[in-house]
Amino acid sequence: MSLAVVVHAPRDLRVEDVPDPSLEADEVEVRIGVGGICGSDLHYYQDGGFGTVRIKEPLVLGHEIAGTVAAVGAQVTAVRPGDKVAVNPSRPCGQCRYCREGLALHCLDMRFFGSAMRFPHVQGGFRQRLVAHERQCVRVPDDLPLEKAAFAEPLAVCLHAVSRAGPLLGRRVLITGAGPIGMLTLLAARHAGAAEIVITDIAAPPLALAERLGADETINVAKDPAAMARLQAGKGSFDVMFEASGHEAALRQGLEGVRPRGVIVLIGLGNGDTRLNLNLAVAKEVEVRGTFRFDAEFAWAVEAIASGRIDPSPLLTDVMPMRDALHAFEHAADRSRAMKVQLAFD
Amino acid sequence: MSLAVVVHAPRDLRVEDVPDPSLEADEVEVRIGVGGICGSDLHYYQDGGFGTVRIKEPLVLGHEIAGTVAAVGAQVTAVRPGDKVAVNPSRPCGQCRYCREGLALHCLDMRFFGSAMRFPHVQGGFRQRLVAHERQCVRVPDDLPLEKAAFAEPLAVCLHAVSRAGPLLGRRVLITGAGPIGMLTLLAARHAGAAEIVITDIAAPPLALAERLGADETINVAKDPAAMARLQAGKGSFDVMFEASGHEAALRQGLEGVRPRGVIVLIGLGNGDTRLNLNLAVAKEVEVRGTFRFDAEFAWAVEAIASGRIDPSPLLTDVMPMRDALHAFEHAADRSRAMKVQLAFD
Amino acid sequence: MSLAVVVHAPRDLRVEDVPDPSLEADEVEVRIGVGGICGSDLHYYQDGGFGTVRIKEPLVLGHEIAGTVAAVGAQVTAVRPGDKVAVNPSRPCGQCRYCREGLALHCLDMRFFGSAMRFPHVQGGFRQRLVAHERQCVRVPDDLPLEKAAFAEPLAVCLHAVSRAGPLLGRRVLITGAGPIGMLTLLAARHAGAAEIVITDIAAPPLALAERLGADETINVAKDPAAMARLQAGKGSFDVMFEASGHEAALRQGLEGVRPRGVIVLIGLGNGDTRLNLNLAVAKEVEVRGTFRFDAEFAWAVEAIASGRIDPSPLLTDVMPMRDALHAFEHAADRSRAMKVQLAFD
Amino acid sequence: MSLAVVVHAPRDLRVEDVPDPSLEADEVEVRIGVGGICGSDLHYYQDGGFGTVRIKEPLVLGHEIAGTVAAVGAQVTAVRPGDKVAVNPSRPCGQCRYCREGLALHCLDMRFFGSAMRFPHVQGGFRQRLVAHERQCVRVPDDLPLEKAAFAEPLAVCLHAVSRAGPLLGRRVLITGAGPIGMLTLLAARHAGAAEIVITDIAAPPLALAERLGADETINVAKDPAAMARLQAGKGSFDVMFEASGHEAALRQGLEGVRPRGVIVLIGLGNGDTRLNLNLAVAKEVEVRGTFRFDAEFAWAVEAIASGRIDPSPLLTDVMPMRDALHAFEHAADRSRAMKVQLAFD
Repeated sequence: MSLAVVVHAPRDLRVEDVPDPSLEADEVEVRIGVGGICGSDLHYYQDGGFGTVRIKEPLVLGHEIAGTVAAVGAQVTAVRPGDKVAVNPSRPCGQCRYCREGLALHCLDMRFFGSAMRFPHVQGGFRQRLVAHERQCVRVPDDLPLEKAAFAEPLAVCLHAVSRAGPLLGRRVLITGAGPIGMLTLLAARHAGAAEIVITDIAAPPLALAERLGADETINVAKDPAAMARLQAGKGSFDVMFEASGHEAALRQGLEGVRPRGVIVLIGLGNGDTRLNLNLAVAKEVEVRGTFRFDAEFAWAVEAIASGRIDPSPLLTDVMPMRDALHAFEHAADRSRAMKVQLAFD
Repeated sequence: MSLAVVVHAPRDLRVEDVPDPSLEADEVEVRIGVGGICGSDLHYYQDGGFGTVRIKEPLVLGHEIAGTVAAVGAQVTAVRPGDKVAVNPSRPCGQCRYCREGLALHCLDMRFFGSAMRFPHVQGGFRQRLVAHERQCVRVPDDLPLEKAAFAEPLAVCLHAVSRAGPLLGRRVLITGAGPIGMLTLLAARHAGAAEIVITDIAAPPLALAERLGADETINVAKDPAAMARLQAGKGSFDVMFEASGHEAALRQGLEGVRPRGVIVLIGLGNGDTRLNLNLAVAKEVEVRGTFRFDAEFAWAVEAIASGRIDPSPLLTDVMPMRDALHAFEHAADRSRAMKVQLAFD
Repeated sequence: MSLAVVVHAPRDLRVEDVPDPSLEADEVEVRIGVGGICGSDLHYYQDGGFGTVRIKEPLVLGHEIAGTVAAVGAQVTAVRPGDKVAVNPSRPCGQCRYCREGLALHCLDMRFFGSAMRFPHVQGGFRQRLVAHERQCVRVPDDLPLEKAAFAEPLAVCLHAVSRAGPLLGRRVLITGAGPIGMLTLLAARHAGAAEIVITDIAAPPLALAERLGADETINVAKDPAAMARLQAGKGSFDVMFEASGHEAALRQGLEGVRPRGVIVLIGLGNGDTRLNLNLAVAKEVEVRGTFRFDAEFAWAVEAIASGRIDPSPLLTDVMPMRDALHAFEHAADRSRAMKVQLAFD
Repeated sequence: MSLAVVVHAPRDLRVEDVPDPSLEADEVEVRIGVGGICGSDLHYYQDGGFGTVRIKEPLVLGHEIAGTVAAVGAQVTAVRPGDKVAVNPSRPCGQCRYCREGLALHCLDMRFFGSAMRFPHVQGGFRQRLVAHERQCVRVPDDLPLEKAAFAEPLAVCLHAVSRAGPLLGRRVLITGAGPIGMLTLLAARHAGAAEIVITDIAAPPLALAERLGADETINVAKDPAAMARLQAGKGSFDVMFEASGHEAALRQGLEGVRPRGVIVLIGLGNGDTRLNLNLAVAKEVEVRGTFRFDAEFAWAVEAIASGRIDPSPLLTDVMPMRDALHAFEHAADRSRAMKVQLAFD
């Protein structure tokens, strides 16, 4: 038995003992060091889920995790005990139609840590002892702090979003929403050669941070609606937009700001239906592309963080011990003060 | 002076004399033979416009036109008097940012026949004498009936939509809406190598025609909603969907029927906002692409019709003399009996 | 024991008994009906191999095969005894890096029927009894002649080549080489919507057949070199070229005939090095793309043949009994008289 | 009259007076500050040209130029006297087929400064007074040294090469040839998010510089051929290769090092024919893409240099006065000591 952070119902979050999983020959036991609290973790905690996804049994949360290899199964060759690893929460089946097509992220039998999408739920990574498939464990340098390694997962989401956008080299980019995903998309888009990046939000503190991270322009759409209108002049000026706020208004504004043949990448999930003036998308031949999780980009994220080419550190607000999970979740939910809050498990 | 079909206000359509335009050195005077009545012509006639586009002065309608060259300007080399031509209604400026980028269809100063998008309006092609730029006149074989040539414009719209979808070879295709655009998209998609084509509508007669034109399956979604549900099983089965109905319900259903990484091409223009469950687009990484008019595809359409590789003839319901324009417009608006109605100008 | 066509050494081809393979739970035993003789079969027979690929032990030839299911393993669900099937000769490992990326055709452990690329060789399909994986057996309609079904493999090669070229809709296409691959590429390119197809060769009979199959222009480059020069005027006029002859001269001429940003797809394998004026490729930004075998296109080929949308029948010169394999191979090698020769196994 | 650097014949380079060009309404007169000596300038000087391009009359060399606006024509709005500008040497016609398609770099009537490709030759930019079209003059910040601005042209070549490669985010890149183009490609590929960059050459000094510029690995193929062999293991390991040496051996080695479906971008122009084992390109489905000059990338290059996101300064070996042009050209030709040599014109 070892400790885990378990949600039982909305607002019912407990730190309690869970049984240790057994170790198969192709699996790795990881002593989790830190784990970042994600928006979906907050939704499980606050609302018991999102959209049609609801918790139906106690669920160990967490999928932004890094730790140290404690033991390896008999066939494991990629890592050894003592190695530091970032853990990829995706475990596709490898056999279904989409896996065989190279689209493992759309696996029909995906097991993703800390997700209530299937039942029984797939238990997550906010726990002291985790067992994962060998392929889920990506080694990081010994001298890389686990706090940085735990950013691999959300950064992978953003690198995948950037990949979905097509080449950004020389392009003019709009990002709506300056939460952790918007912010990491900013770093990822710059990394991919974007020429100009404008980011919007309705809160001042994250926009101030965005500026420090290299945004070329920040717009507080709550205070300065005229700024956005300016960017919509003519047929719009952005080649690519990343929607990372989950708000209808942001998408509606963006659709006017994107130029003919521009691309809008939807990262944020809203609640239910969105109202859009699709005639604009038709007349400007705009493309709206969904993006979901990641695949090869997890390894890219590890490499970019390990090499220092992308540094997520400025996003880390706090690291709090797992026994204070409740406080940590409340802290993470406070956008005015927190960007990314991590839990420490040892 | 010569006769033209002019809309003055909703339900106020007149056949009346209009002044003959002058002929510049790079222009061609065409004696119009026939012209097809398009959905937008019907909107001008019935409602005085669509969306934010409204008639503010009398407008000669028509942009699906073919005729015979009557005279050519001094510099014209592409056609000679007596040549039969299909007339491309697009006249881009050739100088703006988009023209220089090779995106003439997004020209910031586009002049498109029979359109109230700009003011003064650009007068259209339902007239006995029309002057167009040399580049707008695409020669067709002498033995090609002008009725067929006049399908070049709507077919170009559909070939462009197919181009926007990416390769169709071997793909499974859904078309929602079996009006003239849906039907020509069916022919265009087959022409581009689609493996399987399913088409939906809420009326039986066009679906019966679609079957004769080679649709692999037709679904009357008004009578057989279960059929569509079947195609949405799993994560959906269509690689590509063309929305040609302009109805929100069709788009919503289609979004569930399209497989992960599938593409939805929006051809139809709705009225105002559309409500969509974009979370589906996110989770399946679906792409929604607008398509608008055409560019090089006008010449492709002429070639495909002239070579017989695409035969639009089964879509032609009637050819009526221009003096009966009012009847022709009423006839064209009756989906239960008419697919495409053309006017004859001589 | 059952009969097979086995090459022992150059010019040493025997029809002899080979042991019947055992049947695993996910495998299917097929009673082979017919098999087409491919260029690589001829190379094994005439030269003992091609390039660095050489026979080092007796090899059952053949990979263009179709037959009837005789028995199925315990887990097989896709086909039943009595079903007619086209057999896909590719059996990827499903585990390697490329299989997991969805690039099974580049599998690092590929087993392809009738190939000496690995040792022990993978025995081929010119035999009365063949065992294949369930996934290799694609059912065809009961009323489809096996002679047509056996064209699925070479047609799949050409559909894959067409896929590699990108969209052909409206494009101007050059095919160099009017052998079976060039000819099926002609059918595949037309099927994919190519607007104009020019095909070249140095022999008159295949060009005459190409004309009957719908080529817009045929050029005998041995007799009419000026025709090719005409097509190279300016910076070249072809959007896409398929090189299906394996001859350096064809590729060199084609490079001059392809327009800026045009695409050359290399299907043909030459012997050793090729001399090219790559400065032309640089200045015109031409893309030269290799194409190799196929993947999903095998199923597409079956579907296109079964639906009648592509009819390979005119390419079939003769069907000869397996006991006359030696005559059949000599016949197949005579380009002046034969396009495709098949063996019958029952 | 003002001074210019003029080549009259191989090894006959003179600094002499040339007539000042007249200024049209849409043109700008630029007082040239500095100009970088390019490989093609050296070829004109050393050999009188390259490939089939030969000087047939005295030619002012130079196309990597920056300066200060001296005067503007009546219609010019983009720049004013006193502005610092980088000068784009490309002047497409704007009317031909390729210009209308958005492929201005393949203009059939291109006028490119300092080029003998057409006759009369287009005189170049190594002169004190230059007249260019308004669109050729891209403003740079007042505090940007002209030495940096003059790198915009070769950097644009490399950004275009990178664009031609498709997305580099997360990709493994090989660059063959560590001259100025290889080196700027290194900076451009890193800028576009390449994960790992290996660069090869046969000389030690440029490889040492490449390491300082951030190459992940440098290989001296003259001294360590085994290193390259290692990278060719399996089916090859590079996603993308940039050939910037113009040497056949580099391309041949690279073809073995590139993985299945990998892309080779050809920047370097060789002399005449290249011998290649294209069977490798076929079996691995490698794409070989030519790249030529640039288009929108000139503005991107200016932006990247002005923002400091790409710093070409370490490549600048020397700035020498125009009166010492002969010494400067000899210096530039000495790869053991020089990377980029610029001339100063005032």
